[in-house]
Amino acid sequence: MKTVEARVRVRYAETDQMGVVYHANYLVWMEVGRVEYWRAAGLRYRDMEQEDGILLVVAEVNCRYRAPALYDEEVVIRTSIGEANARMIRFEYELVSEDGGRVLATGHTKHVFCGRDRKPAKCPVKYHAILGIA
Amino acid sequence: MKTVEARVRVRYAETDQMGVVYHANYLVWMEVGRVEYWRAAGLRYRDMEQEDGILLVVAEVNCRYRAPALYDEEVVIRTSIGEANARMIRFEYELVSEDGGRVLATGHTKHVFCGRDRKPAKCPVKYHAILGIA
Amino acid sequence: MKTVEARVRVRYAETDQMGVVYHANYLVWMEVGRVEYWRAAGLRYRDMEQEDGILLVVAEVNCRYRAPALYDEEVVIRTSIGEANARMIRFEYELVSEDGGRVLATGHTKHVFCGRDRKPAKCPVKYHAILGIA
Amino acid sequence: MKTVEARVRVRYAETDQMGVVYHANYLVWMEVGRVEYWRAAGLRYRDMEQEDGILLVVAEVNCRYRAPALYDEEVVIRTSIGEANARMIRFEYELVSEDGGRVLATGHTKHVFCGRDRKPAKCPVKYHAILGIA
Repeated sequence: MKTVEARVRVRYAETDQMGVVYHANYLVWMEVGRVEYWRAAGLRYRDMEQEDGILLVVAEVNCRYRAPALYDEEVVIRTSIGEANARMIRFEYELVSEDGGRVLATGHTKHVFCGRDRKPAKCPVKYHAILGIA
Repeated sequence: MKTVEARVRVRYAETDQMGVVYHANYLVWMEVGRVEYWRAAGLRYRDMEQEDGILLVVAEVNCRYRAPALYDEEVVIRTSIGEANARMIRFEYELVSEDGGRVLATGHTKHVFCGRDRKPAKCPVKYHAILGIA
Repeated sequence: MKTVEARVRVRYAETDQMGVVYHANYLVWMEVGRVEYWRAAGLRYRDMEQEDGILLVVAEVNCRYRAPALYDEEVVIRTSIGEANARMIRFEYELVSEDGGRVLATGHTKHVFCGRDRKPAKCPVKYHAILGIA
Repeated sequence: MKTVEARVRVRYAETDQMGVVYHANYLVWMEVGRVEYWRAAGLRYRDMEQEDGILLVVAEVNCRYRAPALYDEEVVIRTSIGEANARMIRFEYELVSEDGGRVLATGHTKHVFCGRDRKPAKCPVKYHAILGIA
């Protein structure tokens, strides 16, 4: 299973008064991770939306928080595909500290391919290979 | 000049590690303020977008921070119109603590009426009265 | 099992270019829901942090998205407690449209009681009753 | 006057239903810009907070929006110092498209040096040179 790495540096805006990153921001980082998964294959998620009219609608998210992410640290997002077919895809994530020594969170997101009307649609064939759809 | 009041309770998500509200969130509260300005007149900004195809594109924001907003407190947003014509509108805001005793911030936002193509357009006549357009 | 209702109106800031609410914002609404759970019992989560030095650290979140939340609509957050003991608590949520006719999302969050040093601590006894801790 | 460049890629979370970046997010990017200004001088803003107990409290922000930023594009943040003394500092920003051809926004933020108690304090001498304080 292929894993793609992306990096984000923690912004002040992302912290909360506990002095660590507010938990909802991890979902935004997962978004960064899956977009970079696309890019690593030489493609852009944006093009699928704009050119093919296919949206990846989020159907479920899960995140387990294991250690706090701190202001100004660099976080590595490791993204892989757990399951994919022409109807849906599940991305899996591991977020770790820059040196890899601290696992910050693990999780997954499940998405349904939809048309611009948000009704279920099939993933265009040209994306099958990079998404591992048989 | 008419002033409309709206209220928001500070969310944990809106705080940062200084233990106060992160400054960019005041702009979101200003948005809440101007939408309630619409509603106080029995109208909805949403309808202007959906039914008339007219968007209020933000052209400028200014905010002076006077006292920190704290987690879980209720903030009162006082919104008025500083200037308005068929092309643009400037909203003015005063954000105060629930008891009115502490001014948290003052500021303004300037907007240009645009069509769905984001090109300048005129404010529909039916909104002139509530926006004070002569 | 007691259920507490809270309401939020969807902000423009919370939408994304799909024309619906960006999925991470549902987690912020869940936060609004559990704080109102506290308040409905005549207590404030804020006081537990400030006066007792006890934090509710998020350990896990799960959300299933069932229907899109739209700009300017009012969303009802129904919060209840799924499980609680002196060490941890699991809140459960159902997010529905204002008229109750549309379920937008369901989910849960799991939290660990921690001291200011973020090390596990016990929930103060005075909160046991409202949290249903035996 | 020295100018430091930082880059951010527009996240889906940062867009709104107009199909462009929501305006409050530009303030977050300005934060990224000034932190990188520090780093370009071999220093970290984080250390000033943690080691010296000095916070840069935001006193004013101003932003003029000139062209919309779009999903997945890379935005260049050009940060410079407009004015600085031991009590306050004003950062100026120009946000441009990756190829430099489109100015997205210009603005400034004014900050006051404060101690951990949020009362005015003096900028530590060791930061004077990089901030251009005479």
